Amino acid sequence: MTASTPLSTPGATLSYEQSGVNYDLIDPLKVTAQRAAASTAVHLAVHGFTEVAASRGESAYVVDVGPFYLASIVECLGSKALVADEMFTLTGKSYYDSIAQDTIAMAINDLITVGATPLVVQAYWAAGGSEWFADAQRSQALVAGWKRACDVCQVAWGGGETPALAGIVADGRIDLAASCTGLINPKSRLSVGDKLGVGDVIVLLASSGIHANGLSLARKLVERLPNGYLTEVSPGLTYGDALLAPTVLYSPVTEALYSAGITPHYCANITGHGWRKLLRHPAEHRYRIHTVPVVTPVLKFIQQQANQDDREAYSTLNMGAGFAIFVKPEDAQRTVDVARAQGVEALIAGQIEAGPKELLIEPLNIRFGNDDLQLR
Amino acid sequence: MTASTPLSTPGATLSYEQSGVNYDLIDPLKVTAQRAAASTAVHLAVHGFTEVAASRGESAYVVDVGPFYLASIVECLGSKALVADEMFTLTGKSYYDSIAQDTIAMAINDLITVGATPLVVQAYWAAGGSEWFADAQRSQALVAGWKRACDVCQVAWGGGETPALAGIVADGRIDLAASCTGLINPKSRLSVGDKLGVGDVIVLLASSGIHANGLSLARKLVERLPNGYLTEVSPGLTYGDALLAPTVLYSPVTEALYSAGITPHYCANITGHGWRKLLRHPAEHRYRIHTVPVVTPVLKFIQQQANQDDREAYSTLNMGAGFAIFVKPEDAQRTVDVARAQGVEALIAGQIEAGPKELLIEPLNIRFGNDDLQLR
Repeated sequence: MTASTPLSTPGATLSYEQSGVNYDLIDPLKVTAQRAAASTAVHLAVHGFTEVAASRGESAYVVDVGPFYLASIVECLGSKALVADEMFTLTGKSYYDSIAQDTIAMAINDLITVGATPLVVQAYWAAGGSEWFADAQRSQALVAGWKRACDVCQVAWGGGETPALAGIVADGRIDLAASCTGLINPKSRLSVGDKLGVGDVIVLLASSGIHANGLSLARKLVERLPNGYLTEVSPGLTYGDALLAPTVLYSPVTEALYSAGITPHYCANITGHGWRKLLRHPAEHRYRIHTVPVVTPVLKFIQQQANQDDREAYSTLNMGAGFAIFVKPEDAQRTVDVARAQGVEALIAGQIEAGPKELLIEPLNIRFGNDDLQLR
Repeated sequence: MTASTPLSTPGATLSYEQSGVNYDLIDPLKVTAQRAAASTAVHLAVHGFTEVAASRGESAYVVDVGPFYLASIVECLGSKALVADEMFTLTGKSYYDSIAQDTIAMAINDLITVGATPLVVQAYWAAGGSEWFADAQRSQALVAGWKRACDVCQVAWGGGETPALAGIVADGRIDLAASCTGLINPKSRLSVGDKLGVGDVIVLLASSGIHANGLSLARKLVERLPNGYLTEVSPGLTYGDALLAPTVLYSPVTEALYSAGITPHYCANITGHGWRKLLRHPAEHRYRIHTVPVVTPVLKFIQQQANQDDREAYSTLNMGAGFAIFVKPEDAQRTVDVARAQGVEALIAGQIEAGPKELLIEPLNIRFGNDDLQLR
């Protein structure tokens, strides 16, 4: 497209970068912060502990505290609450129960990648003013959804913060985040990728929809939909409702895998950067995908409306796969079975080969190289 | 004052409630959330663990994981960054190094109340847009201050989130929070108040200024100052600079106490609700204060400008005392000595007596009863 084509023009391609988040502006800070953070690991020695260095750059930070590993994380929901707010205006329904689940999923699904059992979740609910909390329907939905997600993941909700931040959080809005602490116990459950190797099989767990990544793009698209969020994605299902399907909580699967005697070699939560997250581990391996999952209708709809080719779509959205588990070949089918027994659809999607670091999605003729994902 | 008197009128009393945060709107949600959270504790049993029930309602949540206790928390900075932004406009100086310390202090100073050694801090920096991070001076200050605070507290900076949340966080602003995880090790360090009793001595640690509570009031007051944030609080010290003195990090004191063989019976971080936080523990005790610390100039200034009587001021601001430690009488003087050796001024302020739950600040003839603090 040319610079003069409005993004709202149907037919014009809309990339994630065009939808509002400019990583070129954030990344220099991230690099500086990561270096400063890494330099603080030495402090753990004072307390008799050490960090698991391989967890730097992974989705959760891990410390060796002796009898087990300690994992912790804080994660932001992102802009999905804005869709809930719009849909409330249009339908009068509060979606904050599913928004709560999304927020917890952001933290839990990252924490479990390193092999941790989530134990405690803390709530961070920063509103644009005290008035936000005075809407009982919305508040009760948020509480109910938060509790239900804790129940599903069998974590204790420890507490949290409910500040009213007029002037910092926009009026009428809420900034939602969750922190999560867990243990890797026994220590053999640690999955930071040191056992990842050639021959390992890639199992993909189904997503429920967009989850909570790519929402800037999804919201931008509304501008070119005649009926906006009420446009039907499939018969009887509006775009807004489809977007607001809550993120799948994957910890019941990883806990069931442990009970079944399966220890993943590595896990990747497929969030921002879409399928490029399969390249997350720093090792040099080729990831060859021979089977892709069915694309959730709302993601297919977004791809079509944004006029994205497959490469762009798979580099941004989860395209039906919310979580990747890398296991020994002999564990692959059982991993699928265990996931399905927990109500999460799964499939054997590919395997790891010797080769340069790249992801080959064969059915779609897509290749992502190491240069396509710079997280460290 | 009458309802028609503008808050900016010099001489009119300005209470914390008038400054913008309406707890009456937030508290019903808080109660519902606390009940729902408490009901999730049963999940820990699945993992072989139990919560420390006495930590519900305390400043950090504690789980018994066998060889030690696990403590975790997430804390918000609040609105102090708005003062930093205003002062940047006025002086061209970035205050985000001290703002970083404030944010970490909010989490660390709460976590240590239960006897925990802080181990890992996670950063939550949610900006109103990618552009926030592009200001290198400000970003570098934030990183440098965050790292320095981690160094002081000897914690590992595990990682964090730097989302750009246009539409949720106000344009040009940043919502700062920190999560912190620590261990209570050995378990005898647990200080949730079960040993708190008659005869215990109250040691108060000095604050550096307003810390990060009461800022809504402090910002509101600017409207009645002819020179705003540049008004001098004391010769050569502007109101803005005085407000932005970073919060004292108290974990070096609590760690040094442990090294000295002193285990506090209880600790209270004096934040929102000011000295009423001394009534935090649910037990029925009378807390009698015979000596109050020198009031930091900026707090004296706020009290005067807001025309608050002592009772209002001590119920809102820390008035020179940032942290309270309750110890056995024989440990009291040594607690003061240990704090001073860490560069934190301290004093023996009072003791616990048998009696109804109340706080008597004798030098000022102030009494706070149980009704004055409802946190649970």
